[in-house]
Amino acid sequence: MARKRSLDEGPELRSAILATASTLFYEHGYAATSIRDLAEAVGISSSTMYHHFKNKQDVLHAIILTFMQDFNDAIVPVLRDPSRPPAERLSEAARRHIEISDDRRPELLTGNPFRNALGPDQLRQTIALQRSYHSAVRDTIAAGCADGSFITDNVTLATMAVLDMLNGVREWFHKDGPLTREEIIAHYQQMIAKLLR
Amino acid sequence: MARKRSLDEGPELRSAILATASTLFYEHGYAATSIRDLAEAVGISSSTMYHHFKNKQDVLHAIILTFMQDFNDAIVPVLRDPSRPPAERLSEAARRHIEISDDRRPELLTGNPFRNALGPDQLRQTIALQRSYHSAVRDTIAAGCADGSFITDNVTLATMAVLDMLNGVREWFHKDGPLTREEIIAHYQQMIAKLLR
Repeated sequence: MARKRSLDEGPELRSAILATASTLFYEHGYAATSIRDLAEAVGISSSTMYHHFKNKQDVLHAIILTFMQDFNDAIVPVLRDPSRPPAERLSEAARRHIEISDDRRPELLTGNPFRNALGPDQLRQTIALQRSYHSAVRDTIAAGCADGSFITDNVTLATMAVLDMLNGVREWFHKDGPLTREEIIAHYQQMIAKLLR
Repeated sequence: MARKRSLDEGPELRSAILATASTLFYEHGYAATSIRDLAEAVGISSSTMYHHFKNKQDVLHAIILTFMQDFNDAIVPVLRDPSRPPAERLSEAARRHIEISDDRRPELLTGNPFRNALGPDQLRQTIALQRSYHSAVRDTIAAGCADGSFITDNVTLATMAVLDMLNGVREWFHKDGPLTREEIIAHYQQMIAKLLR
């Protein structure tokens, strides 16, 4: 049996709970996983678990929020960097989007279908983060149109098309498939460039 | 209280059950809807319900299968029509993909997140239909590359990009948004043409 950890392992324990939870939610489903299952898998008591999270919804919210915050922190500054041309910023953002979505697949797929398990305030927070990413992509495409490096009839639709293309990759990419991740990134960077030409 | 229908209303009753079920699953979620809720909403007894479907999973499977079969029947023949140029076929397919996904949103969204509620044989059937659609799109893009009307470095990735773009629309399109469905279709047809140029 796993040893019970003590309460003082604060932030590390919190991270360990989130990592275990995203794996369990991903593998067995959110509905099928109880707080007791989580506590057992982490090796803590249910009461220590409740010291960190009010309920299972709170755990889900923390997983989604942590993922989206990290995602935005890694990509939005690239898109908002005025020292680089818009096409280069968008290309680098596409790379990071595919890489992070692949590296952190359990967290991402946990968040996706179960977003309607969140409370209204929790949902508002995640939507705000998503909007801030979408705006950064849209503003980059608009900047490229303004300086003549991109051409599109509708910046908003081009933004949605680019984001949907990139989001799609995580659904079908397998590391044992015929193309490496690096090859897929290069093709997607090129397709995005064509779409905006 | 709704009148109890008689067993002899065979195919019509089956369609009515599927239509009601897709609305209830869409609005309240698959897990939260019971066979009893379904029977009550249709206005039949639970035993009449069980005469048509073995269980709730069977209802879900019928919804997904009917939708995918109709979707394929409406689009695959367009893509496989040798009398029209590939670019025209793909453009018409993009229109129908967006239209059907929008017209039949409850069925489509029911099928999407709950696909892992299906049994292995049921899943195999739906995957076979999805593959036959994907192949028709891929073959059309390959035909366009062969006759010089399309250019792409990787037909499979271009296929996935086009499908993911088109599938994305149903997630964010609202009929009260700034653009009509007709305008969105025209923009998407144009973006797909650019992507393959």
